[in-house]
Amino acid sequence: MTMSDTEKTDSAIFDRVESQVRSYSRSFPKTFNKAVGATIYDRDGTEYTDFLAGCSTLNYGHNDPDLKAALIDYISADGIAHGLDMFTDAKEKFLEAFERIILKPRNMDYKLMFMGPTGTNAVEAALKLARKVTGRNTVISFTNGFHGVTLGSLAATGASSHRKAFNAGLSGVQRAAYDAYFGDIDTADMLDKQLSDASSGFDAPAAIIVETVQGEGGLNAASGAWLKKIEEIAKKHGALFIIDDIQAGIGRTGTFFSFEEMGLDPDIVTMAKSLSGMGLPFASVMLKPEHDIWGPAEHNGTFRGNNHAFVTGRAALEKFWADKSFETEVKKKGEYLGQRLKAIADAHGFTLRGRGMMQGINAVTGERAEAICKACFEQNLIIETSGPDSEIVKVLCPLTIEMDQFTKGLDILENAFERVMGSRRAAAE
Amino acid sequence: MTMSDTEKTDSAIFDRVESQVRSYSRSFPKTFNKAVGATIYDRDGTEYTDFLAGCSTLNYGHNDPDLKAALIDYISADGIAHGLDMFTDAKEKFLEAFERIILKPRNMDYKLMFMGPTGTNAVEAALKLARKVTGRNTVISFTNGFHGVTLGSLAATGASSHRKAFNAGLSGVQRAAYDAYFGDIDTADMLDKQLSDASSGFDAPAAIIVETVQGEGGLNAASGAWLKKIEEIAKKHGALFIIDDIQAGIGRTGTFFSFEEMGLDPDIVTMAKSLSGMGLPFASVMLKPEHDIWGPAEHNGTFRGNNHAFVTGRAALEKFWADKSFETEVKKKGEYLGQRLKAIADAHGFTLRGRGMMQGINAVTGERAEAICKACFEQNLIIETSGPDSEIVKVLCPLTIEMDQFTKGLDILENAFERVMGSRRAAAE
Amino acid sequence: MTMSDTEKTDSAIFDRVESQVRSYSRSFPKTFNKAVGATIYDRDGTEYTDFLAGCSTLNYGHNDPDLKAALIDYISADGIAHGLDMFTDAKEKFLEAFERIILKPRNMDYKLMFMGPTGTNAVEAALKLARKVTGRNTVISFTNGFHGVTLGSLAATGASSHRKAFNAGLSGVQRAAYDAYFGDIDTADMLDKQLSDASSGFDAPAAIIVETVQGEGGLNAASGAWLKKIEEIAKKHGALFIIDDIQAGIGRTGTFFSFEEMGLDPDIVTMAKSLSGMGLPFASVMLKPEHDIWGPAEHNGTFRGNNHAFVTGRAALEKFWADKSFETEVKKKGEYLGQRLKAIADAHGFTLRGRGMMQGINAVTGERAEAICKACFEQNLIIETSGPDSEIVKVLCPLTIEMDQFTKGLDILENAFERVMGSRRAAAE
Amino acid sequence: MTMSDTEKTDSAIFDRVESQVRSYSRSFPKTFNKAVGATIYDRDGTEYTDFLAGCSTLNYGHNDPDLKAALIDYISADGIAHGLDMFTDAKEKFLEAFERIILKPRNMDYKLMFMGPTGTNAVEAALKLARKVTGRNTVISFTNGFHGVTLGSLAATGASSHRKAFNAGLSGVQRAAYDAYFGDIDTADMLDKQLSDASSGFDAPAAIIVETVQGEGGLNAASGAWLKKIEEIAKKHGALFIIDDIQAGIGRTGTFFSFEEMGLDPDIVTMAKSLSGMGLPFASVMLKPEHDIWGPAEHNGTFRGNNHAFVTGRAALEKFWADKSFETEVKKKGEYLGQRLKAIADAHGFTLRGRGMMQGINAVTGERAEAICKACFEQNLIIETSGPDSEIVKVLCPLTIEMDQFTKGLDILENAFERVMGSRRAAAE
Repeated sequence: MTMSDTEKTDSAIFDRVESQVRSYSRSFPKTFNKAVGATIYDRDGTEYTDFLAGCSTLNYGHNDPDLKAALIDYISADGIAHGLDMFTDAKEKFLEAFERIILKPRNMDYKLMFMGPTGTNAVEAALKLARKVTGRNTVISFTNGFHGVTLGSLAATGASSHRKAFNAGLSGVQRAAYDAYFGDIDTADMLDKQLSDASSGFDAPAAIIVETVQGEGGLNAASGAWLKKIEEIAKKHGALFIIDDIQAGIGRTGTFFSFEEMGLDPDIVTMAKSLSGMGLPFASVMLKPEHDIWGPAEHNGTFRGNNHAFVTGRAALEKFWADKSFETEVKKKGEYLGQRLKAIADAHGFTLRGRGMMQGINAVTGERAEAICKACFEQNLIIETSGPDSEIVKVLCPLTIEMDQFTKGLDILENAFERVMGSRRAAAE
Repeated sequence: MTMSDTEKTDSAIFDRVESQVRSYSRSFPKTFNKAVGATIYDRDGTEYTDFLAGCSTLNYGHNDPDLKAALIDYISADGIAHGLDMFTDAKEKFLEAFERIILKPRNMDYKLMFMGPTGTNAVEAALKLARKVTGRNTVISFTNGFHGVTLGSLAATGASSHRKAFNAGLSGVQRAAYDAYFGDIDTADMLDKQLSDASSGFDAPAAIIVETVQGEGGLNAASGAWLKKIEEIAKKHGALFIIDDIQAGIGRTGTFFSFEEMGLDPDIVTMAKSLSGMGLPFASVMLKPEHDIWGPAEHNGTFRGNNHAFVTGRAALEKFWADKSFETEVKKKGEYLGQRLKAIADAHGFTLRGRGMMQGINAVTGERAEAICKACFEQNLIIETSGPDSEIVKVLCPLTIEMDQFTKGLDILENAFERVMGSRRAAAE
Repeated sequence: MTMSDTEKTDSAIFDRVESQVRSYSRSFPKTFNKAVGATIYDRDGTEYTDFLAGCSTLNYGHNDPDLKAALIDYISADGIAHGLDMFTDAKEKFLEAFERIILKPRNMDYKLMFMGPTGTNAVEAALKLARKVTGRNTVISFTNGFHGVTLGSLAATGASSHRKAFNAGLSGVQRAAYDAYFGDIDTADMLDKQLSDASSGFDAPAAIIVETVQGEGGLNAASGAWLKKIEEIAKKHGALFIIDDIQAGIGRTGTFFSFEEMGLDPDIVTMAKSLSGMGLPFASVMLKPEHDIWGPAEHNGTFRGNNHAFVTGRAALEKFWADKSFETEVKKKGEYLGQRLKAIADAHGFTLRGRGMMQGINAVTGERAEAICKACFEQNLIIETSGPDSEIVKVLCPLTIEMDQFTKGLDILENAFERVMGSRRAAAE
Repeated sequence: MTMSDTEKTDSAIFDRVESQVRSYSRSFPKTFNKAVGATIYDRDGTEYTDFLAGCSTLNYGHNDPDLKAALIDYISADGIAHGLDMFTDAKEKFLEAFERIILKPRNMDYKLMFMGPTGTNAVEAALKLARKVTGRNTVISFTNGFHGVTLGSLAATGASSHRKAFNAGLSGVQRAAYDAYFGDIDTADMLDKQLSDASSGFDAPAAIIVETVQGEGGLNAASGAWLKKIEEIAKKHGALFIIDDIQAGIGRTGTFFSFEEMGLDPDIVTMAKSLSGMGLPFASVMLKPEHDIWGPAEHNGTFRGNNHAFVTGRAALEKFWADKSFETEVKKKGEYLGQRLKAIADAHGFTLRGRGMMQGINAVTGERAEAICKACFEQNLIIETSGPDSEIVKVLCPLTIEMDQFTKGLDILENAFERVMGSRRAAAE
C-alpha cells in the first residue's frame, strides 16, 4: 500500500470531515460509485479494471449477480439484519452449507465461531483461545506477518509502520523467521532449536500463527514442507497451530483453504475478507471441537454473526464450491498469471513472488513499484504494492475475472513496467 | 447477559458446527427468521416484542422501510459494497449528511475516522490515537466500564468475566471509580488527587475514557456535573477526554450524542452500534481536527468504511435527525419508560437505573433478574439483564417502537416482576 | 530527598568519574571519612550529628563497637566472606539467633530466604513468590508506597520521579489508596468493594504489599485497625499479605517488627536496611513455611547471604534484642521525639507525621522543608526530607543515640524552623 | 548449577529456618567456616580446593591478605561503612584508583555509577539508562544470556528455569541468537537483517546487551569479530551497546575487561562479582559521559556505594592491576588450563568451551557433568556445572591460585572424568 503524503482529494468534504488516516484514496484519487465483476466505475463513468479486489475481499468480484439477488431477496423479506449471536435462519443455512460443502468433503472436523466481523477480531479471538487452552502466554509469529492492528493482533504483526504508533507494550509475542527469510537456512529448524533449548529465552508458546502466503508482507509463499515442519514443531512443543487464512484463503491460491493440499491439520483457522463473498464485513474462527472451551460470551461483540453476510456467504459456497469447476478454473488462471508475470519479471531482471492468484513481481524498490502502479492507474488499472518497502507489485484481481479483461489488465501492467523501466534507462543514459 | 450453562438448541447444526461461545441463543432458544420494527418472528411464525434491540444497535427498529429501500436501491444499482478506504459516492454522501445534520447544528468541529466496523475497533483506534498524540502510555478507565474484548479495549473493560480468559498482560490501564461508585464520595475529586500527587503511583495519562451511561456495567448513569469534572481533570493533566458513546449514543438517551446537553467537549468520541441505523457493522471515531495526526493507513483494516452502512446511516440521519421531532418523541418515551419502571421498582422495593430509553430496574440478584427475563420470554417479550452480576433488568427497545407495543411490553414486564416476586413470597411463606 | 540541581562537589574526581545520579552528596557536599554512633566526621575533622542514619540503615549507629569487634574478629580469622548460598558457620549462627531471639518469643513460624542483599531484591523475590504461590499476576500496592527501583519493585512504587525514567511497561500492579489518603474515607472498604466486584476492573490479586509507615512516601503511618482490615481483605480474596518492613522494621518504630503489636500475621515480610546492624548490604524475605515452594536457585543472585552481614547481624540481635531493655529505651526516645516535634510543629502551625523513632514534620512545601534541612546542615546536623514533594522534614536518627546528642540535634532542628519561618515572616512583612 | 532435589543438610537449623531456594549447599553439603586463597575449610577442618570461586566473585581468592588488612584497618579506624551516595574518602580513593589504573591506561572515558550492590541491579540500571537515553523500549539480548533475576534483568535472561516462576509479563526484550548458536550461520548478519527490515517485527532497540563469554549459559565465548559486528549493528540502528562483564570481567579472561583486546567501544559496561576483590557485595555501571543524563537519585538504592567494597576494591586495583605482571600470569594460567582441559576432553571425545580462566568441558549431559562434579567433591575439589542442561563442567578457580594447587585440582578433575566415564563404559559392557 502506498504511503505517499500527497493526495489530491476528489471532493472537499473528504478533506474537511474525514481523517487523513485513509490511504488507498491517495493512490486512486477518484470517487467511485459503481462496480460489477472486475470493473469499477468512478462517478464520471470511467471504467477501471480492479486488480486489487479489496485486498482479496472480492474474490468473486463486485456485486456478483447471484449473491446480490440473494441479499436483495433476504432484505426484501425483512430477513433479520442484526441478531447478536441468536439463532437465525440465515446462520443455520450458512452453517449447514459450510458443513456440507467445505468441511465434509475435506474430512475436516471444526466448529465455527463468529466474533466482530473483521480479520483482526478473528485473530484476537484465535490468540485468546490458544492462551486459554494452553494456559500459556507467548505466541510465535513470523517476520513480515500481518495479522491486524488491534492491540492483540498488532503484537503479532511484523510491520513497524503499524506498530510504532502504539506506545503501549506489545507483549506476549516472540518473533521467528519465515520460510526463506534467511535464504537457504532452514528457519523451521532454527525455531525448533530455540524452543527445545531451555536457555534460549523462548518461552513455551501458546500458539504458532502463520500465513501460508504473506499478502501484506510481500507475497512470500511458504513451502508445504516448511509449513508441515512448523505444524510438527507446534505439536511437539504443546502449542496450537494457527493458520491465518484471511488473505490467502477462500480460493485465492486455487483451493478453498490455502493449505488444503499440504497435508496440514491446523488447530485453528482464521477467515475473513472473502468469506461473505460480496465484501460484507464477516469473519470466523474455525476451531477443533476439543478446543471449544469458551464460556458463553467469553469473547463477544455487537456485530458477531453478520446475517447479511451469512446470506451472501452461503450463496457463494453454493455457487462456487459445490463442485470442482471453479477451483479448476482458478488454478488455470493462476498458472496463466504466473506465466505472464514471469515473462514481465524476466524482461527486467526481477523475480516472481507468491502463489496461485496471489502473485506479483519484486520491483526491488518501493519507489519503482509505486511508479509502476501509478502508470497502471493512468491506463485505468487499479493495482497496488505490498512488502516491507512497498516494493512488490501485487496482482489480486477477482478470481472470477473474464479472461479477456484479465489479459488486457496484464497487458497494461506489462506496458507500465516497460514505460517505467524504459524511462529509467533513458534517464540513466 | 445471561451466562446460564444449559441451553436448548433449536437445531442440531448449531450444536454440531457452532462454537459454544454463543450466549443470547441460550436465553432465547428459538430460531428467528424475520423482523420488522420492534417485532421479531421465529420460524414458527411466533411474534416477539424486542426490548433488547441488538443491545442498542437497532435504535430505529428492525428493517426500517426507508433504510431498507435505500439499501435495496443501492445494491440493485451495483453500488460499491466494499471499497477499502477509497473515496466512494456513498461515503461522500454520508460525510456530507453527518456534517450538515449532526456536526454543524451542534457547533461541533470533528473529523471522522473509519476503522474495522465494530465498537471495539473504534476503541482500539481511539486509545491508539490518544497514545500517539500525547506520547504517553497509560489510559484511565472506570469501574464497570465496557469497551470491548480485543486486547487493547479489553484492558479498559472492567468485567472480569471477559478479562480472565486472557492470559496475556492487560497493561497500560489505570482504573478509577465511576460516578457514585462509592456512594456519596466524589470520585472525580479522588481521581484528581491521585493524578495531582507525584507519588500516587498513577502515571500521567494519555486519555480518560468514559461512558456517560454504562450499558453493560449495569445502567449506571453519570451526572453531567461529574462528567464535566472528569473532562476538566483530563485537560488539566494533559490527557485526551474520550467519550465511548457506542451504546448510549445515536439517540438512546434522547439526543444524538448522549452528552450533548452537558456542555462537554470531548477530544474523541467513539460510535458504533446504531450508527448504520439498520444493524449493519459500522463504527467511527470522531476526533478533533488537531488530533488528526495519523499517517496514511497507520491504523487500517479491511472493512473500514462499510459502504452499505454509509447508505443506511445517511438515510437514518436524514429521516430521524434532520429536525427535532424524533428527539422530542424519544424524550417523551424515555419519560414514560421511567414512570412505568419506577412504579414497578417501587412496588417491589427496587431502584431505577439509567437514563432516557436506556433504563432498567436493579433486581439485586442475577438469579432473580434472569428469572424475570425468562418469565418475559414466556410471554414473547425479549429482554435481557446487565450489570456485574446480571442483576439489572434492562429495557433497550427500539426508539421507534409504537406506543401500543411499548405499553404492552411494559405490561408483560410488570407482570413478570409480579409473578417472580409473588412466587418468591409464596415460597418464603 | 533533595533534588536540587546545584551541587558543590568536594573533589574534582567525583565530577570527573562519578555519575550525576548521586543525590545525598548534593545536600551534604562534604567528604566524610569516619563515623561513630550518631556522629559522622568530614575529612577536615568537623563533627556532624546524623539524623539520617542511612535512611534507617544505621539503627544501631555507625560502627557499633561490639558489631565492629565481631566483624574484625571474623575477618582476622579468615572467616568466609563470600559463600554463595552454601552452608557457613556464620549463616548457621545468624539463623540460630534469629530463631531464638526473634521468632520464638513472638510465636512466629517463618523461614528466611536470602537473595541479592538489597531491599529491592527482597521485594522482587517476595512478589515473585506470591505470583508463584497463587498463580496470579496482579499485585496491589498503595499510593506513596516505596518498594525499590528495579523493574518488578518499581511497578509497585508510587513515586513518578522514579517511574518516569523507565520506558518499559510497569505492568502487573493495581494501585489502592493508603490509610487516610482520602481523609476520613475508609480506603480499606474501598479496596474490598473493588476486589469483591466482578466488574470493577480489579483482577484477583497475587498479593497486597504495604508498609506500616511509609518512609519515602512522607512518614504516613497506617493505623493498626486499617492494616488488620487490609490483611483480612488479602486473605478473603486469596492474596498473600506482604509487609515491606525494610525501612520501618528492625526497631525503628519501637519493636523489632513494625507491626508486632497490631495482631497481624503477614504471609511474607521483607527486611533489609538495618538487618545487618552495621550498614552492610543485607536483605532477607521471611515467608510462611507453607509458601516455601521455591525450586533450588529459582530465585538466585551472586551475593545472596552476605557472610559479613550474618556476623554483624547476629551480634546485633544478641546485643539489642535478647531482652526488652533496648525496646523500652527506643519507645521512650520515640515518645520524647514526638513531644519535641509536636512542639515545633505547633509553633508554626504544622502537623506531626509518623510513629516511634520515625517521625517528622509536614512543612507543607518541599522548598521550605529543604531550606530547613539546609539550615540544620549549617549547624552540623544531617537531616533529610521525604514525601511526594519533599515536604516532610524527617528525623531518622540512630536508635542508640545518646540523649544529650539527641536533645542538641532537636534543638538545632527547632532553631532551623524558627530561622526559616522567621525569615519568611520577615520577608512577608 | 545442580538442581538435584535431594540434599543432606549439615545442621537442622537450615532445614528449619532457611528457605529451600538454596542450591549450592545441595552440591556441597558441608558447613564451611574459613577460607584462604583457593582453599576453603569445613568446620571439621577438612580442606577443599575451590574451583568455583563464588562463580567468579573471588578472582583474587578468599581473604587476600592485603585486601583483608586494608579492610580491617578501615573498620578499626571507624571508617564509614554505610554512607548512601554521599562523598566519602573511601569512594574518592576508589574512583581515583579506577581512573588512574584502569581507565587512563586503556584510553577509556567513562563515568561510574553505583546502585544496589548486585549484578542484577547493575543490569537494571543499564537497561533503564539505555531506555532513557534512546526513548525506546525494546532491548535485544541473546540466547543463553544470563543477566540476573529481578524483573527487568530477568526479561533479558534466557534460562527458562528462572523465568517460568514469574507469572508477570517479561516484556520489552527481543531475543537474538548468540555467536555460533546456529553453527556456521552468521547470527550477527541475521540480527542486522531483522533490524534493517521494517517488517520483521523487531522494534528499533534501546540497547543490545551481551556477555563476551556466557558463564551461566555454558561458557560460550563469542569471537571478537562477531562482537565487533554486534557493536556496529547497535550503532547503525541507534541502540546503546552494553557489555555485561559481570562474570567475565575483572581479569577472568586474562585482561581487566573481557573485551579489551577486541577493539570494542561499548556505551555501557556492567561490573559486579569480583569488583570488590574480596567477595563483598558491590556493583557498578560504567557509562560514556554523554549518556550521563540521570536526574539526582533517579535510580537509587540504600546500599549504593558499599564503602567496605570501595576499600577492598581499591586495594585490589593497586595490588593486581598497577602493572602487567598479574595479567601476564593469568594469561599463562589460562593457557595451561586450556591445555589440561583439552587433553581431558580429547580423551573422552568431548569439546572444550570458554576462554582464559573461564574454561570448561562439554560433558554433553547434565547427569554426567554432575556425576563428575560429585566425584571431584569426594576428592575435596569444589567445582560446578553450567549450561542450559548443566552439561558443562566449569573451571572458575581463583586467578591467584598457586600452580601446585591448580595442578592438583586439575588432576582430581582428570581423574573424576576417568572414573565417571570408565564406570559408564564398564556399565555399558
